[in-house]
Amino acid sequence: MASDSEIAIEDVRDLDFAVEQLGVPELPSPVRNADFVAPAARITLCRDADAIERFVRGGGRLPAFEKAGPRERIYHDPAWTRVAIVTCGGLCPGINDVIRSLVNTLYFDYGVDNVFGIRYGFRGLVPAYGLEPVALDPEKVDLIHEHGGSLLGSSRGSQDVEEMVRTLDRLRINVLFAIGGDGTQRGAAEIAAAARHHNLPISVIGVPKTIDNDLSFVDRSFGFETAVYAAAPVISCAHAEAKGAHDGIGLVKLMGRESGFIAAAATLANSVVNFCLIPESPFTMDGPGGLLAAIERRLAMNDHAVIVVAEGAGQDLLQAGGQHDASGNAVLSDIGVYLRDRISAHLRGRRIDHAIKYIDPSYIIRSVPARGTDAIFCLQLAGNAVHAAMAGKTGIVVGHWAEHFVHVPMALAVRERRKVNLKGQLWQSVLSATQQQRYFA
Amino acid sequence: MASDSEIAIEDVRDLDFAVEQLGVPELPSPVRNADFVAPAARITLCRDADAIERFVRGGGRLPAFEKAGPRERIYHDPAWTRVAIVTCGGLCPGINDVIRSLVNTLYFDYGVDNVFGIRYGFRGLVPAYGLEPVALDPEKVDLIHEHGGSLLGSSRGSQDVEEMVRTLDRLRINVLFAIGGDGTQRGAAEIAAAARHHNLPISVIGVPKTIDNDLSFVDRSFGFETAVYAAAPVISCAHAEAKGAHDGIGLVKLMGRESGFIAAAATLANSVVNFCLIPESPFTMDGPGGLLAAIERRLAMNDHAVIVVAEGAGQDLLQAGGQHDASGNAVLSDIGVYLRDRISAHLRGRRIDHAIKYIDPSYIIRSVPARGTDAIFCLQLAGNAVHAAMAGKTGIVVGHWAEHFVHVPMALAVRERRKVNLKGQLWQSVLSATQQQRYFA
Amino acid sequence: MASDSEIAIEDVRDLDFAVEQLGVPELPSPVRNADFVAPAARITLCRDADAIERFVRGGGRLPAFEKAGPRERIYHDPAWTRVAIVTCGGLCPGINDVIRSLVNTLYFDYGVDNVFGIRYGFRGLVPAYGLEPVALDPEKVDLIHEHGGSLLGSSRGSQDVEEMVRTLDRLRINVLFAIGGDGTQRGAAEIAAAARHHNLPISVIGVPKTIDNDLSFVDRSFGFETAVYAAAPVISCAHAEAKGAHDGIGLVKLMGRESGFIAAAATLANSVVNFCLIPESPFTMDGPGGLLAAIERRLAMNDHAVIVVAEGAGQDLLQAGGQHDASGNAVLSDIGVYLRDRISAHLRGRRIDHAIKYIDPSYIIRSVPARGTDAIFCLQLAGNAVHAAMAGKTGIVVGHWAEHFVHVPMALAVRERRKVNLKGQLWQSVLSATQQQRYFA
Amino acid sequence: MASDSEIAIEDVRDLDFAVEQLGVPELPSPVRNADFVAPAARITLCRDADAIERFVRGGGRLPAFEKAGPRERIYHDPAWTRVAIVTCGGLCPGINDVIRSLVNTLYFDYGVDNVFGIRYGFRGLVPAYGLEPVALDPEKVDLIHEHGGSLLGSSRGSQDVEEMVRTLDRLRINVLFAIGGDGTQRGAAEIAAAARHHNLPISVIGVPKTIDNDLSFVDRSFGFETAVYAAAPVISCAHAEAKGAHDGIGLVKLMGRESGFIAAAATLANSVVNFCLIPESPFTMDGPGGLLAAIERRLAMNDHAVIVVAEGAGQDLLQAGGQHDASGNAVLSDIGVYLRDRISAHLRGRRIDHAIKYIDPSYIIRSVPARGTDAIFCLQLAGNAVHAAMAGKTGIVVGHWAEHFVHVPMALAVRERRKVNLKGQLWQSVLSATQQQRYFA
Repeated sequence: MASDSEIAIEDVRDLDFAVEQLGVPELPSPVRNADFVAPAARITLCRDADAIERFVRGGGRLPAFEKAGPRERIYHDPAWTRVAIVTCGGLCPGINDVIRSLVNTLYFDYGVDNVFGIRYGFRGLVPAYGLEPVALDPEKVDLIHEHGGSLLGSSRGSQDVEEMVRTLDRLRINVLFAIGGDGTQRGAAEIAAAARHHNLPISVIGVPKTIDNDLSFVDRSFGFETAVYAAAPVISCAHAEAKGAHDGIGLVKLMGRESGFIAAAATLANSVVNFCLIPESPFTMDGPGGLLAAIERRLAMNDHAVIVVAEGAGQDLLQAGGQHDASGNAVLSDIGVYLRDRISAHLRGRRIDHAIKYIDPSYIIRSVPARGTDAIFCLQLAGNAVHAAMAGKTGIVVGHWAEHFVHVPMALAVRERRKVNLKGQLWQSVLSATQQQRYFA
Repeated sequence: MASDSEIAIEDVRDLDFAVEQLGVPELPSPVRNADFVAPAARITLCRDADAIERFVRGGGRLPAFEKAGPRERIYHDPAWTRVAIVTCGGLCPGINDVIRSLVNTLYFDYGVDNVFGIRYGFRGLVPAYGLEPVALDPEKVDLIHEHGGSLLGSSRGSQDVEEMVRTLDRLRINVLFAIGGDGTQRGAAEIAAAARHHNLPISVIGVPKTIDNDLSFVDRSFGFETAVYAAAPVISCAHAEAKGAHDGIGLVKLMGRESGFIAAAATLANSVVNFCLIPESPFTMDGPGGLLAAIERRLAMNDHAVIVVAEGAGQDLLQAGGQHDASGNAVLSDIGVYLRDRISAHLRGRRIDHAIKYIDPSYIIRSVPARGTDAIFCLQLAGNAVHAAMAGKTGIVVGHWAEHFVHVPMALAVRERRKVNLKGQLWQSVLSATQQQRYFA
Repeated sequence: MASDSEIAIEDVRDLDFAVEQLGVPELPSPVRNADFVAPAARITLCRDADAIERFVRGGGRLPAFEKAGPRERIYHDPAWTRVAIVTCGGLCPGINDVIRSLVNTLYFDYGVDNVFGIRYGFRGLVPAYGLEPVALDPEKVDLIHEHGGSLLGSSRGSQDVEEMVRTLDRLRINVLFAIGGDGTQRGAAEIAAAARHHNLPISVIGVPKTIDNDLSFVDRSFGFETAVYAAAPVISCAHAEAKGAHDGIGLVKLMGRESGFIAAAATLANSVVNFCLIPESPFTMDGPGGLLAAIERRLAMNDHAVIVVAEGAGQDLLQAGGQHDASGNAVLSDIGVYLRDRISAHLRGRRIDHAIKYIDPSYIIRSVPARGTDAIFCLQLAGNAVHAAMAGKTGIVVGHWAEHFVHVPMALAVRERRKVNLKGQLWQSVLSATQQQRYFA
Repeated sequence: MASDSEIAIEDVRDLDFAVEQLGVPELPSPVRNADFVAPAARITLCRDADAIERFVRGGGRLPAFEKAGPRERIYHDPAWTRVAIVTCGGLCPGINDVIRSLVNTLYFDYGVDNVFGIRYGFRGLVPAYGLEPVALDPEKVDLIHEHGGSLLGSSRGSQDVEEMVRTLDRLRINVLFAIGGDGTQRGAAEIAAAARHHNLPISVIGVPKTIDNDLSFVDRSFGFETAVYAAAPVISCAHAEAKGAHDGIGLVKLMGRESGFIAAAATLANSVVNFCLIPESPFTMDGPGGLLAAIERRLAMNDHAVIVVAEGAGQDLLQAGGQHDASGNAVLSDIGVYLRDRISAHLRGRRIDHAIKYIDPSYIIRSVPARGTDAIFCLQLAGNAVHAAMAGKTGIVVGHWAEHFVHVPMALAVRERRKVNLKGQLWQSVLSATQQQRYFA
């Protein structure tokens, strides 16, 4: 599908896409049969041919990502390489696929067999928690991708950076893979900086995990495709519930704290949705132009309604709590419960005998195994993370852009959340599919 | 699976299994190629050979159900027959399969083509609601079984019996199929009685719908098998969530207001459950023998726990609310939320850093379409309901016992809820599979 | 669903349902919390109340199975018990569930921890093949049920009985579980007889495996339910292919060598089938009453046709090959290929431009994992096999009848294949659902 | 996943990407809320930043596709527009999604309500077949995407172009959507040319359908993603069968006449495959470096093997038949049957007792409904086809490149098949995942 990932050159011309390198890669790569990627190969961010031509003719250097992939010369000696893998934050389909592919690529393509799994997120790098790393090898990870979740366990929140770096040093780790969201990548960036400060040649490579698919400069994140598949039967059930009662309403809350990609995609993949509410598109509840009146109009016309709401939608309507979880994410008030209660009260007030069924399927979407092409994406994403690490890169996440895997400096990846463009194809498709604007006055 | 459906002759010897008949069936059945069932064929309730021999030799008449199936002589003239179908109560997999099979059997096997669907439960029989019946034929119902829910819509609660009978009379209905739970069957029994009182020859036939599988004298109810299938991925997700955090707990609430059949079966079908809590097996929360201590022991041994709880379990632990819904069912306090909060508070009090994920999948289990052998069960159940109706039976539900479809007088079907036998094979299998008793002091 | 399992007392009154017992069970059972089954408890085969009353009053002793379940006194001492498990014949959903439940019941309920898996069927009991048994325990089998196939591997064909018994003796095995079809159970019966002859107190217990669901006196076999589920999407595809072309035909061959249970059930579970062909219901190809003319009529009326054929259907139409496979099963000619070619040739001859798509999904039905209530059935079936073995039974298979697990002497279980009753409810439902008789002249 | 779609500027610098336009679009678009695409917006084919900079600085004009999307000015007057939709060739997941989205976009976004479905491919445009078009509207197509296949039916082969254009003229069609593979698009190009020749202002827009994902200049085709998902359980079954017998072999033939994209992707998505054989990578059967010896080595090491073969692989090994089907595709000899027979004969000759199970799941992969993100892709692809048509484009297919929908002149789209790059990431991932090179001498 179209990922709304086009970027204007002007908006990114001054950003720094340079990738930090631990040292000169001088060792021959043991990878066989590959088309090695030139050390400085770059992928253009912008794909507008006219804009490119104008910009280049005007003397500009194209904003571009370093291209991911195996390099002919590598920095870390496989025989001496000791790798740590850590998974942080909430669950997401495909974490185990990523772990598995990291281990297999290290083992089979590079001959690295000292790989350790850090237990339960960054906590596993803090001795006080008493969580011993586990040794990983291809046999140990052979079937883990058949299960959702994370083999290693996860936790939220940051830990003391110096202490984590000391642990890495004591374990003689020279490659760290951090699988996690933007909080995790900020932590990983700090670890990379601290390692540099201590002259520890540790490659810190991020594998961006965000089921919301909202990382800057990453047009696709692993697990998102599976999440869209997993949401489908839930929405079908909401539809059955809605039609099962006179003036029945099925209300489904999906993930999406600041971006409505999952809600929008799930809506498009299931033609039964009548209202799709996302953080990027504000709405009011009351008055003739509000959601309550729109739902009333919908019921009057069709006797039932299906609503999909992203968890971050309509936060302005709720009491600001000001709380944050251990990862530093703002604790959102529950828009699903709020909508259920407000809609129900409104219809009761209007003496409309109705039935509203609220479904919050988050845990049963994010914890399924990745499948099909999403599993392949995990596999290739992790393979490219290994190539980046062995080449001596650090402080980057491995991203995906315009059908290429690329290296994105951590600072860029976390600078802001990617949003649904309300004028772009994705949201236009949603408006066309739901026809929801018809119900608003 | 073993349905724990054995019954001692002594317990049922005095019950009345006689079936009410509108009149003498004198018309030849148009059903072709069938082995007609003898008018008085009966199926023994008890299957214990020695008990049967003793009882019969002692002069007793075996307690037995009238056997369902096509009769050679029928009562209602297909050419004059006008049928109404109504669906009441909550959703359940297979309602549309039942509707479809009722229509098809009437049409293809009996040549009845005046079939009406009553909209939104018993309300559709009350003119004030303004809900017109819809005409049903094989084309209209051809694909409805691919969708969950009810084509006709449903509602809870009873309506004025006299008014409903007047509506049936005005519509010239002589066969009413009521698909619903025990509240519905009580209502249907009242309709049958009122029709008799008014000398209206209406066959009122119940198709018992209880996803909890808890109807007396019915060893299997439609939708239950599909519900067990649908619960499986949810429990897998709870397991992934539980293992994804240190001292992680996955808590799943399943249907089962007074009987734990779904919770027990879902536990057996998914080997990852550590605690299965059902209404039939009381438990305490506090003290060394309580659930909280047991969970603590489990976490100490295995670092994670998966709990399945039936919605009706542990109600004695909760504040009695005394409320009832429109169907007359007691409004249960939410044991899932209660357990989540109590467990969390307890572990915090014990300074055990944990993560508890609570999943309530009811709406996404009960609204899926029936599949496979469950769909076949719906088809045959409805077919036998038609045979019963056309033969002039009334006041019965079509049940299933010992691999046979049978006629169960409504009064018997609703007299009490069937329960999980704590000494029977089902619960023994649960205890063996979960090993949950190990964690209790 | 109705399993067509009713049996007339007259047909079985003279059969011997007695179960062989190795010796008097004198040890107390370690099984906790169970309702122990009385040693001689029996389940009536017949459920016709009137027939039972007549028969008993006439002085007869009801034909009955010994009831399965845990006994208060057992024969084999758990501390000295050494168990072997062997899987033979073709794959079937649920084999791993059965293995897993055997191991877990032995381990957790009886404290037996010497359990060995015999590799690749009866071959694993013949030293010349060099296949070492593998030790099995709960950890080893923990997740095997998530995969289809057999953990132990399988093979077809019998081996020298004396040699197998010598191997069992050398391994000090006193309990052998044989999971397999009728050939396997015949072999197991010979092993039991040879063990008796050599005074070796070995309990030989069969777990009947027949995806065709065609074992005598067993109204349900494991894996059948899953097979019906697995056939559904295949038939939907055949329907899509049929409708995708003008005069398109989708032809699906399903399992069922001598009995059409899977074909009939798959047809009922999928409303799109127009012709269901099974071994029990002969048909001709040519002439106005033949299948070819019927298909032509169907195409003329509806432009497409979906045909489900059991592999054993219409064998009289094919050249008899007279060959047998290693298990002694007659090698059937391929009715699917035959039908495809004959139909295509016929329609070409009639100048009907058509497209026929033939699908043979056998391997992708029989090798999926068992799920839901079928998995529970496997679990309980195996649990009862363990109870039978520990009680000192031998020479029986554990079957299921009238919602009870029972002990069926091997000689009875294999005496003939169970067939679809053409006058019974299953086939009547098929004729009603397909309306296939309309197309035959 | 990485689609191996990078193209060197040098290879395409001289190609003509210009799009034919029926006339000047002067009418205002009725599409609301959209970011209209500039009439001449172009998307660069190449994404290598350095190559782009060199090329542009050297004075070159970047090879680029016209960008798809809604235009502010359109050519066809919606009030007078009459649309025909035709589906040709074999089934593919998502055809119904495409039809549905064409109808809905025409109806809701442009207000076009004269839409006709042509029955059974190009035949439906030839009066002699007597196939009347069917009127399509949103209600008619509302649920068709829940079913695989094509609502309209399909056929292979071309028809007389002049006759088809006469039919379009007679039906007053001014927009034709042709959903089909390269044969279909060649036919569509001829229709566009003939219409131009006759001064008929008909927009002929192709929606490329190739489950093999092998169209030039199209980095993704609809249905491919679903096909990869659908292949997964089949490969799991092959694995269960392989492990179920000593020296068991599971052999699966997948689609891919000239390109191995499905076989490669299915292999990556299922970690159990040991050999993946595709048309692009030749192999020999015999000798120490041949496949037979490699399989023997695999069996000696692991006792089982799973092989995935694309239908077009190893065609040089087979007897050239020289036949073609009605679409002009060469009739391939069956590599699956060939491999099964050769492997079996070889192992018998080596006295290796084995079991080989051959599965050909093509019909049950291509006829499933599209789901999730693949369904969204269909929806957006069709939406962009409508935008192209209404803007007055003709002679193009709507393709996808670098995350953008684009207009690809039909002549370019069909000039050659896209192939798996044996040095690219996809195939490298396959070699890494299977480790298949280890088994070749």
